[in-house]
Amino acid sequence: MTYGIIGMGAIGGYYGGRLAYSGVDVHFLSHSDYQFVKERGLQVDSCDGSFHLERINAYQNPEDMPKCDVVIVGLKTTNNHLLPQLLPPLLHEHTVVVLIQNGIGVEADVQQMFPGTALIAGLAFICSAKTEPGRVNHQCYGSINLGNYSCKDQALFDEVLNTFTRAGVPTASVPYEEARWKKAVWNMPFNGMTVALNTQTDLLLKNSATRQLIRDQMTEVVGAARHLGVAGLDESFIDKMIDMTDHMTPYSPSMKLDFDFHRPMEIHYLYTRPIEIAREAGFHMPKLEMLEAELKFMQTVL
Amino acid sequence: MTYGIIGMGAIGGYYGGRLAYSGVDVHFLSHSDYQFVKERGLQVDSCDGSFHLERINAYQNPEDMPKCDVVIVGLKTTNNHLLPQLLPPLLHEHTVVVLIQNGIGVEADVQQMFPGTALIAGLAFICSAKTEPGRVNHQCYGSINLGNYSCKDQALFDEVLNTFTRAGVPTASVPYEEARWKKAVWNMPFNGMTVALNTQTDLLLKNSATRQLIRDQMTEVVGAARHLGVAGLDESFIDKMIDMTDHMTPYSPSMKLDFDFHRPMEIHYLYTRPIEIAREAGFHMPKLEMLEAELKFMQTVL
Repeated sequence: MTYGIIGMGAIGGYYGGRLAYSGVDVHFLSHSDYQFVKERGLQVDSCDGSFHLERINAYQNPEDMPKCDVVIVGLKTTNNHLLPQLLPPLLHEHTVVVLIQNGIGVEADVQQMFPGTALIAGLAFICSAKTEPGRVNHQCYGSINLGNYSCKDQALFDEVLNTFTRAGVPTASVPYEEARWKKAVWNMPFNGMTVALNTQTDLLLKNSATRQLIRDQMTEVVGAARHLGVAGLDESFIDKMIDMTDHMTPYSPSMKLDFDFHRPMEIHYLYTRPIEIAREAGFHMPKLEMLEAELKFMQTVL
Repeated sequence: MTYGIIGMGAIGGYYGGRLAYSGVDVHFLSHSDYQFVKERGLQVDSCDGSFHLERINAYQNPEDMPKCDVVIVGLKTTNNHLLPQLLPPLLHEHTVVVLIQNGIGVEADVQQMFPGTALIAGLAFICSAKTEPGRVNHQCYGSINLGNYSCKDQALFDEVLNTFTRAGVPTASVPYEEARWKKAVWNMPFNGMTVALNTQTDLLLKNSATRQLIRDQMTEVVGAARHLGVAGLDESFIDKMIDMTDHMTPYSPSMKLDFDFHRPMEIHYLYTRPIEIAREAGFHMPKLEMLEAELKFMQTVL
């Protein structure tokens, strides 16, 4: 099986690196680091054991890449407008595309771009960052949940799952909608609020006013999911998320890092789309709407 | 008639100064500037004509002041816990107290402290600031609306109104509840949002996301007021407030100045009380609730 990786950042670099290190035939599309990784390879500093790949199959243009059986997209969703250029050269008739991306509505939009292509959602639970060209720092966690969006070939889905597992990545199969909305319960409050109030997860929960606000926002997400008929979300899941965050090291979610480093924030798929999807079904999320507006304002004055 | 002024800041200094300059018998309670104004008097730099009062009746302790027929409270509401100490020495049986303060619920709380005292709400439309000890800078506007809260002596109410008018302050009588809630339609969105997004009124309206958010928040205030049975507020008043702000010079509301100068913000009467009053009547203001929480968080990390 041939794997293609689009994007060699914190996600593509880490998971692609793990796969290659385990012996999988991996081909990396690298925009900014191409020259560097072609000459020097890829270094992964990992809490689960560091490793270096001397030589990797790196490409600057998708046209130079082989057709792949599995393509992993590790781009920020803010670059998804590039997919119609980047993806087609890698696809054959039975390619499955794994989108390891944030937010809600990503698969639906990518499916519209590629109506016939099999899609899998990858929900990564990982703290990792690209620290310099050709170097990824994996600090903690690292598991990935795969939600089948439109892959009719169950054997292929299972093969992808097993390939990750064999590469040392804890992987599980989860119901697609439930997994996306469960992740949103944490993502929607904490990503935006750490940006809006220039803070970290722990301080938001220590202040009684923002602790209640975070809970209110989580309740909006659970309410939207339930209104949309998504199973598995209730009050107790909110308690669990709050409790988990209480016990986490103080954390800056990816949107906070994007904002601090003057990169575009993933407002569209983390806020705009889920809010629209819920509203179209008749459910309003006023506090998350307000957060969306604040983030859009902050994005313009970056 | 004897007038007492509690607080010689942007409000007490300006309106007290105008009254004294017009010949009214005015007595100022000054906390921080007492020594300075005792020796050097009060300077008012005003767009409507500057003036200097060589000698003013200034006091450091309320016990040294005469009983007053009218007491004007020009404190920030964050200092209202001091009123039980400051006010009683100035009151006689028929004293009327004019609260020139921000927010909703102020009169009810002060009335609880002084059940028998006649109260008038003063709604100032003014840009002024205390720039240094004994010096107030009045940049623009300056009118005051008086809303009768609990003054049963209509002749006394009219006399206060006429005294302001004679001192060159445009003054009108307005229905109390309507005036307070109308002011909140502008105050609640703009005071907090300029703090939350570290910006001014004009930029909030130029960005389409925050323009809509401001409108949503105004709609919450109008909805609360109507739910509470307050007359005179509707959609067209929101249009008028947005339109007025579009044509204003970029402006930092008082809460933004308080935040920038590390003074406590008037969160309680600008947000907490009106939100509580509406909620107790069964009406929710989710976006203003969220703003309240953000401001409480920001207050703690000042």
